[in-house]
Amino acid sequence: MIELSFGQYNLVANFFSLTIAAMGAATAFLWINRSLVAPPYKMAVTISGLVTFIALYHYVKISGSWSGAYELIDGTLVATGQPFNDAYRYVDWILTVPLLLIELILVMKLSGKETLSKSLRLGGLAALMIVLGYPGEIATEAGTRWLWWSLSMVPFLWIVYELFVGLKASLDLQPPAARGLINTARYLVIASWAFYPIVFIFPMLGVDGASASTFVQIGYSVADIVAKAVFGVLIFAIALKKSQSEAAAA
Amino acid sequence: MIELSFGQYNLVANFFSLTIAAMGAATAFLWINRSLVAPPYKMAVTISGLVTFIALYHYVKISGSWSGAYELIDGTLVATGQPFNDAYRYVDWILTVPLLLIELILVMKLSGKETLSKSLRLGGLAALMIVLGYPGEIATEAGTRWLWWSLSMVPFLWIVYELFVGLKASLDLQPPAARGLINTARYLVIASWAFYPIVFIFPMLGVDGASASTFVQIGYSVADIVAKAVFGVLIFAIALKKSQSEAAAA
Repeated sequence: MIELSFGQYNLVANFFSLTIAAMGAATAFLWINRSLVAPPYKMAVTISGLVTFIALYHYVKISGSWSGAYELIDGTLVATGQPFNDAYRYVDWILTVPLLLIELILVMKLSGKETLSKSLRLGGLAALMIVLGYPGEIATEAGTRWLWWSLSMVPFLWIVYELFVGLKASLDLQPPAARGLINTARYLVIASWAFYPIVFIFPMLGVDGASASTFVQIGYSVADIVAKAVFGVLIFAIALKKSQSEAAAA
Repeated sequence: MIELSFGQYNLVANFFSLTIAAMGAATAFLWINRSLVAPPYKMAVTISGLVTFIALYHYVKISGSWSGAYELIDGTLVATGQPFNDAYRYVDWILTVPLLLIELILVMKLSGKETLSKSLRLGGLAALMIVLGYPGEIATEAGTRWLWWSLSMVPFLWIVYELFVGLKASLDLQPPAARGLINTARYLVIASWAFYPIVFIFPMLGVDGASASTFVQIGYSVADIVAKAVFGVLIFAIALKKSQSEAAAA
């Protein structure tokens, strides 16, 4: 285990706690407010809450694993010998990242055929991206990390391209009142997703192990809050705006 | 860690337990009764419950941290060496205080544009106020505490002024039946909020460490119950009164 100062350990622990609170609050917000949107958008809002709910569970496990890995003895932080389990993050992402893409596709209300084909293709690419990232995450050698990072970037860039270009094309089919929010969602996906590969390369930049490890844990937590909780609330706002403009037109 | 008597330690532990009970009860009350208010007010009631839900989580963590910091050995209370984590309060406030302001703005039912601009401005000021308070809270030196307290008071006074004057102006737009309750909410915000900077300065007044620490923990707990649970129930009462008077007018 990497040697950390108590300040670094505690900062990470507080960020995990913040993330648990944010994911729990977002889940409650989304599932309670599901009743406010029209039937065609209920599934998008349900799934947005499912994503934060799954993340809530994993952050409880991550936070427990972090507490179990270190102990404060006579004012000094020592490793207990129990390894911190990085796999919780990757299990979380395997489940939530395809769902995140599906919630964005569902709220667009494309044709049934297009919804299915886009969900399968983007969901599959997302799963591939995560599976290719994991061997690099658990590697300590910089060369190995770079190899898997590069492989994982191929599906990553493909998804980002499809979202940016593909969703742009269907933007004209959306009610004018919701276009601004949908555009914000497109950019939020890209901004929050770009965070992950940047956090990943931090330990390969020659920074000392303790600072790099602290930064990685905080960086992934913040990225998860934005990509899941903030993004979920945005999906709800789009669903509400579309429900209202369709009710007004009827 | 500050040396406490068992009586002081236990009094604080009981206040934490009271706060957990109050926050849990308020969350259930608000979310269950959400169905009684008209659609435009559901979001204000949902968010009121979200605030007490987030506080419930943090008081469970605060209470656990308090238990972990002290131990009763042969009738004497001794510090275990695990520090009590003050950060949980500040993480809680960063999330809940902007939401508290938003629930008050939402229940006023201003125009969409005014709701957004007021929420962003007051929410941002609230976050700034809390971020400026934290370095003082964890400082032991009185001069440092006074410095951050003074800086934090600038956004604090700005918010209080805006609420008092700004909400007064929009009071005439509210249905007469709800005006009395909205006025109460304005005063309740000021009375409960004023508690926090007073609790904060207690350790700087030359009181002995144990009494000051006991007072700070109890003071913040009582202030949180009033500012979140009691205030949330008041927001619900306003939402119900407005729903009824609008149904009667229709």
